[in-house]
Amino acid sequence: MTTQFVYSFGATKCEGEASQKMLLGGKGANLADMVKLGLPVPPGFTISTDVCTYFYKNERKYPSSLQAEVDKAIANLEKDLAATGMKFGSKENPLLVSVRSGAPVSMPGMMDTVLNLGLNDETVQGLIAQSKDERFSYDSYRRFLMMYSDVVLGVNTSQFETLLEEKKADAGVELDTELTVAHLKELVREFKQVVLAATGKKFPEDPKEQLWGAVGAVFGSWMNPRANTYRKINSIPEHIGTAVTVQAMVYGNMGDDCATGVAFTRDPSTGDKKFFGEFLINAQGEDVVAGIRTPQPINPESFNDSNKHLPTLNKALPAAYGDLVTLYQKLEKHYRDMQDIEFTIQKGKLFMLQTRNGKRTAAASVKIAVDMVNEGLITKEEAIMRVSAEQIDQLLHPRLDPSKKKDVLCKGLPASPGAVTGKIVFDPDTAEKWVKEKGEKVILVRIETSPEDIHGMHVAEGILTARGGMTSHAAVVARGMGKSCIAGCSAIKILHQERKLVVGQREFAEGEFLTLDGTTGEVIAGKVETVVPELTGAFHDFMKWVDETRRLRVRTNADTPNDAKVARHFGAEGIGLCRTEHMFFEPDRIGAMRQMILSDSLAEREKALKKLLPMQRGDFFGLFKEMKGLPVTIRLLDPPLHEFLPHKDQDLKDLAREMEVPYEQLVRRKDTLHEFNPMLGHRGCRLGISFPEIYRMQVRAILEAACELHKNEGQHVEPEIMIPLVADWRELHFVRSFCEQEIQAVLKEQNMKVPYTIGTMIELPRAALTAGEIADVKKGNAEFFSFGTNDLTQTTYGLSRDDSGSFLHTYLDKKIYEVDPFVSVDQTGVGELMRFAVERGKAERKGMKIGICGEQGGEPKSVEFCHRIGLDYVSCSPYRVPVARLAAAQACLRK
Amino acid sequence: MTTQFVYSFGATKCEGEASQKMLLGGKGANLADMVKLGLPVPPGFTISTDVCTYFYKNERKYPSSLQAEVDKAIANLEKDLAATGMKFGSKENPLLVSVRSGAPVSMPGMMDTVLNLGLNDETVQGLIAQSKDERFSYDSYRRFLMMYSDVVLGVNTSQFETLLEEKKADAGVELDTELTVAHLKELVREFKQVVLAATGKKFPEDPKEQLWGAVGAVFGSWMNPRANTYRKINSIPEHIGTAVTVQAMVYGNMGDDCATGVAFTRDPSTGDKKFFGEFLINAQGEDVVAGIRTPQPINPESFNDSNKHLPTLNKALPAAYGDLVTLYQKLEKHYRDMQDIEFTIQKGKLFMLQTRNGKRTAAASVKIAVDMVNEGLITKEEAIMRVSAEQIDQLLHPRLDPSKKKDVLCKGLPASPGAVTGKIVFDPDTAEKWVKEKGEKVILVRIETSPEDIHGMHVAEGILTARGGMTSHAAVVARGMGKSCIAGCSAIKILHQERKLVVGQREFAEGEFLTLDGTTGEVIAGKVETVVPELTGAFHDFMKWVDETRRLRVRTNADTPNDAKVARHFGAEGIGLCRTEHMFFEPDRIGAMRQMILSDSLAEREKALKKLLPMQRGDFFGLFKEMKGLPVTIRLLDPPLHEFLPHKDQDLKDLAREMEVPYEQLVRRKDTLHEFNPMLGHRGCRLGISFPEIYRMQVRAILEAACELHKNEGQHVEPEIMIPLVADWRELHFVRSFCEQEIQAVLKEQNMKVPYTIGTMIELPRAALTAGEIADVKKGNAEFFSFGTNDLTQTTYGLSRDDSGSFLHTYLDKKIYEVDPFVSVDQTGVGELMRFAVERGKAERKGMKIGICGEQGGEPKSVEFCHRIGLDYVSCSPYRVPVARLAAAQACLRK
Repeated sequence: MTTQFVYSFGATKCEGEASQKMLLGGKGANLADMVKLGLPVPPGFTISTDVCTYFYKNERKYPSSLQAEVDKAIANLEKDLAATGMKFGSKENPLLVSVRSGAPVSMPGMMDTVLNLGLNDETVQGLIAQSKDERFSYDSYRRFLMMYSDVVLGVNTSQFETLLEEKKADAGVELDTELTVAHLKELVREFKQVVLAATGKKFPEDPKEQLWGAVGAVFGSWMNPRANTYRKINSIPEHIGTAVTVQAMVYGNMGDDCATGVAFTRDPSTGDKKFFGEFLINAQGEDVVAGIRTPQPINPESFNDSNKHLPTLNKALPAAYGDLVTLYQKLEKHYRDMQDIEFTIQKGKLFMLQTRNGKRTAAASVKIAVDMVNEGLITKEEAIMRVSAEQIDQLLHPRLDPSKKKDVLCKGLPASPGAVTGKIVFDPDTAEKWVKEKGEKVILVRIETSPEDIHGMHVAEGILTARGGMTSHAAVVARGMGKSCIAGCSAIKILHQERKLVVGQREFAEGEFLTLDGTTGEVIAGKVETVVPELTGAFHDFMKWVDETRRLRVRTNADTPNDAKVARHFGAEGIGLCRTEHMFFEPDRIGAMRQMILSDSLAEREKALKKLLPMQRGDFFGLFKEMKGLPVTIRLLDPPLHEFLPHKDQDLKDLAREMEVPYEQLVRRKDTLHEFNPMLGHRGCRLGISFPEIYRMQVRAILEAACELHKNEGQHVEPEIMIPLVADWRELHFVRSFCEQEIQAVLKEQNMKVPYTIGTMIELPRAALTAGEIADVKKGNAEFFSFGTNDLTQTTYGLSRDDSGSFLHTYLDKKIYEVDPFVSVDQTGVGELMRFAVERGKAERKGMKIGICGEQGGEPKSVEFCHRIGLDYVSCSPYRVPVARLAAAQACLRK
Repeated sequence: MTTQFVYSFGATKCEGEASQKMLLGGKGANLADMVKLGLPVPPGFTISTDVCTYFYKNERKYPSSLQAEVDKAIANLEKDLAATGMKFGSKENPLLVSVRSGAPVSMPGMMDTVLNLGLNDETVQGLIAQSKDERFSYDSYRRFLMMYSDVVLGVNTSQFETLLEEKKADAGVELDTELTVAHLKELVREFKQVVLAATGKKFPEDPKEQLWGAVGAVFGSWMNPRANTYRKINSIPEHIGTAVTVQAMVYGNMGDDCATGVAFTRDPSTGDKKFFGEFLINAQGEDVVAGIRTPQPINPESFNDSNKHLPTLNKALPAAYGDLVTLYQKLEKHYRDMQDIEFTIQKGKLFMLQTRNGKRTAAASVKIAVDMVNEGLITKEEAIMRVSAEQIDQLLHPRLDPSKKKDVLCKGLPASPGAVTGKIVFDPDTAEKWVKEKGEKVILVRIETSPEDIHGMHVAEGILTARGGMTSHAAVVARGMGKSCIAGCSAIKILHQERKLVVGQREFAEGEFLTLDGTTGEVIAGKVETVVPELTGAFHDFMKWVDETRRLRVRTNADTPNDAKVARHFGAEGIGLCRTEHMFFEPDRIGAMRQMILSDSLAEREKALKKLLPMQRGDFFGLFKEMKGLPVTIRLLDPPLHEFLPHKDQDLKDLAREMEVPYEQLVRRKDTLHEFNPMLGHRGCRLGISFPEIYRMQVRAILEAACELHKNEGQHVEPEIMIPLVADWRELHFVRSFCEQEIQAVLKEQNMKVPYTIGTMIELPRAALTAGEIADVKKGNAEFFSFGTNDLTQTTYGLSRDDSGSFLHTYLDKKIYEVDPFVSVDQTGVGELMRFAVERGKAERKGMKIGICGEQGGEPKSVEFCHRIGLDYVSCSPYRVPVARLAAAQACLRK
């Protein structure tokens, strides 16, 4: 049996159905479905996505049986329209068709459409004879010539537009509709000359040749750069292909009893339940969006500032409007979702050209889902699946006012979402000064950020860096703070001497306004107004259902009481990662920290640590108090010590004076701390093993804080102490031994009992492989695991996230990586190691608690993966908590 | 049933046997065996190693049944000696014993011995009565006091020696033997006072108390620092414990018909088949090694410069000598190995105190093994197992003349074996100048080396660095060149301004002599003569058997025709790793390489590559030619590009002038190449993917060289092209595609066919995990794998070998690592990944060739592991090839 490539829809034969989106594309499947629903749909046929696949596998050739199938489908079409007597290519009564693309996934704006196909100098006479409207016929003809030349023949449309503008100028008119038949005839002739000049060939007059040209153009457009980019951004696989739908034309431009329009069954911006749309009298589809004539509102609900003076459809063509209302209600009930409808009214009769699930804002998405549950249209589970995790993220951040213009300078990585405007500053001190002293809003622009920039990042509205990836310092810290951030924007240059930002030919001085859209990565000149979404009642209802559905717990990565508070507001159920080192960067501590690091002896180190102890204890006290009994996982010191040292000579000199040691001695000590590959160097538990006094101080601070909290506030806490960078169970065994000594000493001093657990990060391949030994009570005795997927990804791939910027784009461009593994867990490699660790850890220790605290812990696909391999919780930055909650619920429903 | 802890040996009962070394220690098992053989061995008993284990598990207590067992064993002993009437503790006829340690593995010099135990002020009278020799009795008594006080009571022996010296001075004599009974009696009294003063307790008079004290001291010495160090160096596990052997004393010091001595059944230095030993008349065991009297040769074969004037044993005591000869022949036949014998002659009667397999030099080891095969004593297989892989290594390098004194300054890591002497130089240019212009021999002393030092390393005798580990640049390159190297010697300081080397308080100017022992890591002041071992006929016979036995092939890592030649001389069967980047550091190439790197455009890069092409082609031609048809694996460019750039500003300025571009531009370009973690950065196949033109040039050079070789020399070669740092099959797929294009282009130009394969390094955890996909013909299509265990270890552990120096010693000290994972493959973690890769690779591709080219490819335990998991070959530096061959053969025999 040969494969069927062409599927007719119409009265004669209706072969597709709604479920066949992969084969017929969204459009083709919906049209077939609408026909089956009994809606007034112009008949047609769909060439399946299989043909697209065949096309690209066979050097852009078609299957041999395709031509015959298409001929048969055209015959069916003519049979459907037998009452009208129209035939494809007929000089007397020509059947005109539209040719459109239709991928299984909606890819708006990406594919091109050809209308009125079948017209030529002969058939246009037939059209005139039938329509009795010479102007309409020539208008259709010149539209067809323009579109076809553009989409199929690749002729630049600007020449046609210029001719059209000139024609209007000559005629002294403003609107296309004011041109006479004579003008249009001239345009047709002139357009054909343009095509001949541009392509060296005459415009094809044969309707069949026109049809095959259009079909080829649709398939060809599947691989155009715009389509490739859209797919990459939206993670749509390339192999699914597009279908082509050929449909009999209906005309909204046959006179004033004709119209064409688009409508949404609910408000796509707010989600409010109101029928909402725009139309134009005597026009074809593309006129509505072209912006030449202001579209009219279909009803008073659709009024806005620019259209409220125009006549509505319910007034202009009330019967057709009535039909439209009946139909949209039928459609929404049938599809159980908000619909985006295209319709045409020809001589007063309504035709449905397309319906599909409408795009909507994040707020609308939640509102519609919740309303539809309340209306009994869908279940709670369906509602949960209707809202994407990324939409939830959008809801939490301001976005650019879509009605405002924006002057986009360049694009970087969308490292932390949200749109912000502020004055450019180039260093953290200026940022702090301007904000605190002048009350300015600032954007901190840096080559890259380091822990010394924290105070500047804290006060800035947003951060823009020239280097670094999605998990660079700037990106991670900004997400943690919920600040907008664009990272790795290599198009910007910073001239520090002149305090100027240069993008291409344009320069911006410090103090000029800049706008960042951290959601898209766009860097925009000047100010743009932003819109702050409200967390509505619908949002709260929705998240309640989400929480009832999910199994995975969601914690947050938080280092300060303030982080913790924000995260609890977003529904965090504990702290999965408190990075103690961030506490050491505070200005009042870094001095003591540096003294500790640059000490030559244990005694000196202990002296410095004594200064740090009360500060750390205070930190933990605050954090514990804020978390009100929820679990708190504290990771002991992780980064290599040299990260804490001053970068500048002057700072080192100041430190030497303060420490009363020779500058040269500090330089030498700093030199000995230098590492070639600090990521793989003297850090994590390696520090704890070399300098047990550091970890001793930290566990003392944790336990003392827990005791104090109990004594002063009567509040309990069960600290989870986490040892980083373990590769071998003996490391954990060693660290645990002396930590427990210190803990027991504290509890004896305080005369208290505090429950606590000691566990480890699983962030090295060897830790994952030997997870059994690490969990074994007699060996590593880890009481919990937490996956550090940043480091685990780095080591599994042998890939530094900080350095990957220089080639990652090549990898994504050349499709070597489908997705940046630092953004979404690599389920094949890193994921296998995670599965090993879960299996081996749980086999050794029944019911062991396992979580993830890497950056990917808030990324929906990674959350789903974590659910699948049986983790107990994910932990992510505070602003990602709602995203993770939703992703966890969806993972449950997806099974 | 209670465990038996004490095993008697003697006529009454002989409970142990040779196979029970783990239980009775080497000494105890051998004594029992000798008794069973019918040799004249003083009777005694052995307290098993189980007691040692118990001792350390139970806070240094003994099993409850031990005392009764010891008492019973003493009773057996007395029964054996019934003819003499001796009883332990008897005042009339005391039985004296020796107490010695005896671990399952020989640990010479590490454990302490107590002789003459059982003497006190009363029993000494009994000894006098029985021996009728008051002087001998008091001499034995004062010896016992000295030894016991030292070993058991921990009293510093120097006080005893001072008293002894004073006594001799007072008496006006030179030798101990010249002291009178009166002197000895005084010494006994004085010694006891010393003990009282030092310990606050009287010297124990009760023989039983003495015995238990000695037993405790032996067990206690198992954990003394010397023992711990010896075990660490020799990889002897701690848990095996030591046994204690208690044996009836026999006396070599009862007069001139008494003697004591040691002998080897063959020459331990050369392996020659001659009976060889030393003895002293009227002496106890320790006198022979104490160096106070020059020991006499047992026979003319044992003559040397310092003893040839002394009477031999065969002359002095011919009957006893005759017995000794009969016995040694019996022993060697029985043990089928060269024996190290301790004997005592008491009143003309020969007693055997100990026999064990004798320590021997590497050369002797091979010679004895081969001779014994020829004598029919052992099989070839046994011979192969008798020689350790490390001994083979020693054979290939000069070593310090053991007869010369050495002034050891400090120790570093024994990074590349061999002993060398030369003048200190501090930079490669001086090294080259002094060697080439003055014909000097130099030692290059550097903080650390970089690829820019290669020319200096090439001419130096040896390399000494202050930083870096066993796999630092200096270490790896030196091993490759077969040069002596001591790395990471943190005790040295280099004062570049003053051109001085400082070690502690001592300074050495440039030009002063220094000696390095790369085998031990010792840095020695001045010149020391060295001995160059010859590769004898026995060596060649031995290696022939080795090659007949092994399954694993052994290749070499070689970058130049000269390396290749050396390696072939050592038996390499191909090149497993040719690092093409080393070729770019040659002075005539680095310029073009730098131009290529600093180019801003493809066109400029291609221009620079065009200059490099003929050079690379020449390299490969030379290498192929040298390898005479053996397989050659060439790894395409691996290191990050910034490694090739000049480190100094001046060099960069010179380069700018040469390239005719502004200096600032080069600085900027260099800055953009900077990486935080270059090991995880833009290197390996990532370079090939970003800059395909580099790899294209390289494969072109390879194929053109192969064609040229065929045309000009009629010689075939099948190049194996290896792609480094693959983490995902798509990377290999991409690189393979464009490489094959280039290859096909070359073959078409040359109108030839050259067989070739393309494979990959497995050096990242993800590569090991996804080895199936990487091997899959439809995906990565790797035709061979080669494990890069350096990088695989780095990434599996998240541990940079270059930076690990700062904490690795702590890890080894604290026993967190048993062995440096960069020296020997971590079989648990890294090994599991290797097993995955082998299984998954071979499952996908039957009979796929898999090797290893990491540093560990020449380390015996790693070689054995590679054999066990089914690799096809190992590849190592040229000088390690014979080691790997032997290790491979032993792996086969070990199963």
